[in-house]
Amino acid sequence: MTLTLHLAAGTISMCVHAALEEAGLPHDLAWVDFGTGAQGQPNYLKVNPKGRVPALEIDGAVLTEAPALLEWVAEAGGGALMPRDPLEAAHVREMMSYLASTVHVNHAHKMRGHRWTDDPAAQAAMRAGVPGTMTASARFLDARLRGDWVGPDFSVADLHLWNITRWMPGDGVDMDAVPALRAHHDRVAARPAVARVIALHEAAA
Amino acid sequence: MTLTLHLAAGTISMCVHAALEEAGLPHDLAWVDFGTGAQGQPNYLKVNPKGRVPALEIDGAVLTEAPALLEWVAEAGGGALMPRDPLEAAHVREMMSYLASTVHVNHAHKMRGHRWTDDPAAQAAMRAGVPGTMTASARFLDARLRGDWVGPDFSVADLHLWNITRWMPGDGVDMDAVPALRAHHDRVAARPAVARVIALHEAAA
Repeated sequence: MTLTLHLAAGTISMCVHAALEEAGLPHDLAWVDFGTGAQGQPNYLKVNPKGRVPALEIDGAVLTEAPALLEWVAEAGGGALMPRDPLEAAHVREMMSYLASTVHVNHAHKMRGHRWTDDPAAQAAMRAGVPGTMTASARFLDARLRGDWVGPDFSVADLHLWNITRWMPGDGVDMDAVPALRAHHDRVAARPAVARVIALHEAAA
Repeated sequence: MTLTLHLAAGTISMCVHAALEEAGLPHDLAWVDFGTGAQGQPNYLKVNPKGRVPALEIDGAVLTEAPALLEWVAEAGGGALMPRDPLEAAHVREMMSYLASTVHVNHAHKMRGHRWTDDPAAQAAMRAGVPGTMTASARFLDARLRGDWVGPDFSVADLHLWNITRWMPGDGVDMDAVPALRAHHDRVAARPAVARVIALHEAAA
């Protein structure tokens, strides 16, 4: 099986990158330079017409969307990164869906307001709202965390959560007010596979 | 197993309701009246602190987020509503994630701009952008559809897609320009289980 991950430094593609490392699946990296807008250029749109990362080529077929990729990687890696119990798996999917469709979307209103309006004043209003929406999400997540991990064991949802928590200080969240979430972030970041990924993204930034 | 679905007429809870009907799983319905803001009242926040629908009580435990619920219902119903092949399942999850985190979010900028800003002018700008963003999503989906269904067979992703396509005429999408998507919508709506759900939601509206 040949795997090529299309990714950009510091973006949500980090968690899929980390999942590949955690799962021990050999893969190639194809960096997409957001600085030059490469995600909107014809070469990349041939890979992913949505113009976003991550995208994973699996023997030439393209799969997109972080939650779908994370679960595919978990399964391809032998299943250790997803709970086997159906209700526990459902709660891991619930977390990933909330992260993708609420928390990541809140964050996107800082730099990607152009997705929803061309009006610069409205984009500025969206940007101004980000500390409030991200703080509300952070508090919800902080209250949701019970043990070390989202599920009974470490899973791909922890990588997804870590990736988005990593953005929170820059989004105006006071991390002192969400100690369980901060401890979760640090616990994930300390894993050797994740530390390797962080180093690669910092070098590529 | 006792199942209670918390839902509101015409919302994204419709697809989970339809999945329960398709799967033949007995369930109770607990309607949440968005007209009176019941989703934000203490009684409902005890069920789902996010103040949103759908929420499913499974022997008293609460599960939220449409993609997680759809896949749990598919599994509880015996598995016929999800592909068994891991890559096909991944593409079904990819569709549900795109619907939840991009298309549903585009739609939410019409009536739920208050999620991201208190500024009435910015909310109006968001609302004005909806026909454009929803048309772009509709065209992407129209080009994505190959056969009758999202996957090789009918799956929960078809219910999710039908639910969101149902909003598109009201969001300013010219359905004549997306014939494959319109045909998909009509194909799902004609299923007996889905027709029953539509009738219940129209009566509850």
